[in-house]
Amino acid sequence: MKTAEDFAKEQKEISVSEFFEKNKHLLGFDNPTKSLLMAVKEAVDNSLDACEEAGILPELIVKIKNTKEDIFVVSVQDNGPGIVKEQIPRVFGKLLYGSKFHRLRQSRGQQGIGISSITLYSQLTTGEPTAVWSKVESHKKIHYTELHLNTVKNEPDIIKEEDLDKDILGEHGVKVEMILHGRYRRIVEDYLKQTSISNPFAKISYTAPDGTKKIYPRSINELPKAPKIMKPHPYGVEFGTLQRMLQKTNSKTLLSFLTNEFSSVGTQSARQICKIAKVDEKLKPAEIDRVIIEKIIKAMQTVKIQRPPLDCLSPIGANELEKSLKREYPDAEFVTSITREPDVYRGFPFLIEVGIVYGLQEEEKKNNNGDEDEKNSESVELIRFANRVPLLYQQSACGLTEAVKEVDWRRYNMGQKGGSLPSGPMKLVIHICSVWVPFVSESKEAVASYPEIIKEAKLAVQDAGRKLSSYLSGKHRAGEAKRRIQIFERYSGEVANSIGLLTKKDGKEIEKKLKDMIASRIHIKNIESSEHEEEIKKDKNDNIKKK
Amino acid sequence: MKTAEDFAKEQKEISVSEFFEKNKHLLGFDNPTKSLLMAVKEAVDNSLDACEEAGILPELIVKIKNTKEDIFVVSVQDNGPGIVKEQIPRVFGKLLYGSKFHRLRQSRGQQGIGISSITLYSQLTTGEPTAVWSKVESHKKIHYTELHLNTVKNEPDIIKEEDLDKDILGEHGVKVEMILHGRYRRIVEDYLKQTSISNPFAKISYTAPDGTKKIYPRSINELPKAPKIMKPHPYGVEFGTLQRMLQKTNSKTLLSFLTNEFSSVGTQSARQICKIAKVDEKLKPAEIDRVIIEKIIKAMQTVKIQRPPLDCLSPIGANELEKSLKREYPDAEFVTSITREPDVYRGFPFLIEVGIVYGLQEEEKKNNNGDEDEKNSESVELIRFANRVPLLYQQSACGLTEAVKEVDWRRYNMGQKGGSLPSGPMKLVIHICSVWVPFVSESKEAVASYPEIIKEAKLAVQDAGRKLSSYLSGKHRAGEAKRRIQIFERYSGEVANSIGLLTKKDGKEIEKKLKDMIASRIHIKNIESSEHEEEIKKDKNDNIKKK
Repeated sequence: MKTAEDFAKEQKEISVSEFFEKNKHLLGFDNPTKSLLMAVKEAVDNSLDACEEAGILPELIVKIKNTKEDIFVVSVQDNGPGIVKEQIPRVFGKLLYGSKFHRLRQSRGQQGIGISSITLYSQLTTGEPTAVWSKVESHKKIHYTELHLNTVKNEPDIIKEEDLDKDILGEHGVKVEMILHGRYRRIVEDYLKQTSISNPFAKISYTAPDGTKKIYPRSINELPKAPKIMKPHPYGVEFGTLQRMLQKTNSKTLLSFLTNEFSSVGTQSARQICKIAKVDEKLKPAEIDRVIIEKIIKAMQTVKIQRPPLDCLSPIGANELEKSLKREYPDAEFVTSITREPDVYRGFPFLIEVGIVYGLQEEEKKNNNGDEDEKNSESVELIRFANRVPLLYQQSACGLTEAVKEVDWRRYNMGQKGGSLPSGPMKLVIHICSVWVPFVSESKEAVASYPEIIKEAKLAVQDAGRKLSSYLSGKHRAGEAKRRIQIFERYSGEVANSIGLLTKKDGKEIEKKLKDMIASRIHIKNIESSEHEEEIKKDKNDNIKKK
Repeated sequence: MKTAEDFAKEQKEISVSEFFEKNKHLLGFDNPTKSLLMAVKEAVDNSLDACEEAGILPELIVKIKNTKEDIFVVSVQDNGPGIVKEQIPRVFGKLLYGSKFHRLRQSRGQQGIGISSITLYSQLTTGEPTAVWSKVESHKKIHYTELHLNTVKNEPDIIKEEDLDKDILGEHGVKVEMILHGRYRRIVEDYLKQTSISNPFAKISYTAPDGTKKIYPRSINELPKAPKIMKPHPYGVEFGTLQRMLQKTNSKTLLSFLTNEFSSVGTQSARQICKIAKVDEKLKPAEIDRVIIEKIIKAMQTVKIQRPPLDCLSPIGANELEKSLKREYPDAEFVTSITREPDVYRGFPFLIEVGIVYGLQEEEKKNNNGDEDEKNSESVELIRFANRVPLLYQQSACGLTEAVKEVDWRRYNMGQKGGSLPSGPMKLVIHICSVWVPFVSESKEAVASYPEIIKEAKLAVQDAGRKLSSYLSGKHRAGEAKRRIQIFERYSGEVANSIGLLTKKDGKEIEKKLKDMIASRIHIKNIESSEHEEEIKKDKNDNIKKK
């Protein structure tokens, strides 16, 4: 029999890097195509985050070279603020390290895993280190670092480090180069194209493995308003979180703790929380025990507290999105987009935007989704974004997809087979932005199906659907009217002639009057039978009821 | 403009516990029902692993109490070897800690996350510590520990620790008690029932929140043969792994390294690897650089190396599974099961087993899957296991489900709508066991769709399908024959009488002869038109071709 002591000898710590190395599919490294895309994606997302946060209009240079067989060199260069040399090793060579995890503010990265996971994957598949060039404004030279990720310790191993005199980065910026196993597919370009749609203020130059160059230009020369950092909202707080906050706070009383450390809690709401919880508002935070914490949490859910501030969100904007889509799809028959008001799930503000591109040539309608599970040539193309980042895999596992499927598209003059995506010549763009997007896995490919998110996403899709429907009805009516006029016109000459013969009046004049009459009749008819407007009303009522 | 120095101030380490606390849905804590199940599951899985590894026939006591509203106390007690007191805090209060991650051996747990994630979730939702009673054979007293998980450090915080004189655990064993937010649903019983099917040597006593007691008895009084630990197989090794192995090895030459550290590599294969890689077999492992590593890896894939040893696997066994299923479903019309020979993916041995339970009463056919996405009242119930652990969620994301859907069930006399699960009064059990099951997420609910796994799973399902089909055809034939005999019998008296009158012979005798003739004809016909056997041949040929 194996004893407890035998077991004890075998038990040891597992580093988070060892864990993710063995489970690399959890980070999105399921196959070579996806792995190559991940490398581009994580570097580009980081660059855009850095530029935006520093207030710099992003200018990115992305290059992919195929050095041999299945080995690729990916390099991404930006004009961001640069990274100080002390931080470079850990930013690129340590999992779970970064500035975005511990704050509530909309950004592309949020876990501190992304870019260092590429270092992990590169060294696992090719043994090559990640190379980083960084230029910060305060330092004259470029700092060059070559590093590995020590998986046993989850710490960077610096291979080489030096100051360079070259001037390849201008005033400030970062260039990163990674060498990894991969497979090149069109999805990289899809990713860049979609990134350009959701970041119309970014300029991206791209060189593909075959040497082809492509530039994704700006359609806007201004950065969006920078999102602010928010404090936690009482509606989303859990026992353990509140307990930790109480331990760490500098506030002297429960009352000041509540007003200082939470968003949307003024003195009045704070007093009300204390009153409902039957807890003394002058209690010292450090003295608050488990029983009281539970009472406070219950009270927090009961008291009516204003929704969190919304300046922590940075949507693309309906106008900007429409402009982007028109630039990317100049041949589209109809383009529209909407931005909803923000809503809240578990105390986190979020917001949904939807864009519709209708009536593209068939050749444009290629399915550029990474996975094959939604392969249906008739379905519309769904383009999903989370905090401006395109989501290219796991479409069917995504809450946003679920919302689109739940909408009754026949109401908006689109085809739909029960419970699936609508069909027709349409691209549907859907964007969630939030201070904390709940993804279904670390590879950040699909949004978890929180009911609040699905509900808002449905309303957003319906808003845009009505605009589309309005266009399609107009098109339909115009077509109908034209067809009727053509029929009457075909016979009106003959009718007018006959009437002219019978009444001895001028046939031509009769014909003209007939035509005028027909035209006005059609117009009146259209106004009378405006079924469409009624439908809009019906839809709106539905939504109000649901709320 | 925000500078690089400003960014540097904000960058910091994220502990793995903070990460999983914020992303708790990744660990399976999406909703209260699932969270409660997770607590039972992780504790039971750990207990079964410990008992099996120590060579003890497991005897578990599971209790769930509902103390108020949505708060539950889950306790699981086993008769395993116990845990030495020094290890208790980290086993229950530190994520990524354990004995199973760094070795290749079939076990239920493999990540070192499970049970400590329950401590994390309990304290997050109720603030309550996890309580552990442990009795090891070498120590007279029970050791009691109450602990929290410090999420900032990912280390245990011990609240209370003492030796107790009580005799609640016998010679040895562990009892763990966790207090958490949850919701009680039937799925807990489904989990225990399925666990009992896949662990027929375990006895589990269960007390539900309403006080109902249930015992899941043993159907076998012997433990399965213990799986052995295996060394990595060359076919599954990656650059980074090989590099690390070369750094850590005590072997003096490349040749001895290859034969000592890998499974299935003898001197001959090792020499061949060196020869193909054009590398000196006497090279010191420490001196092997990146270029040589790459050559060795390429050569490893080229050389024909025996499959890994299979004694690291511990299947349920076809007989044992059948016995379990007959015990659980005594009313079933037909029960069968098969165990495939092991196969290998990425150097990891794995094996598939399938069981079929056919012809249950409709009332038994409740859908006991956790998620609703496969809700189709006509579909068969699919019961999935990985290393003897029931998988109760994410059915549609699971590679095992995919395999079942890919089989053409109409061949086996079962209904099936294109590409979906078969329909009919059947329960289909499918079990994968492996030294490393690739799950699609940390919550271990679905197996990743590796092509090798899907292929083997399909073959396994087809094997079992043929057995079912054979039964169903026999049943069909027997039914047909009976019907024909009934028809002839109905008229044979009259015919015999008439013939008797015409031929002046004894009507009774003629009737008897007629009946004998009919019976033998039916028999001959059945043998002649044995379409079924032909189909089996066809199937087998298909499989051989695929191989």
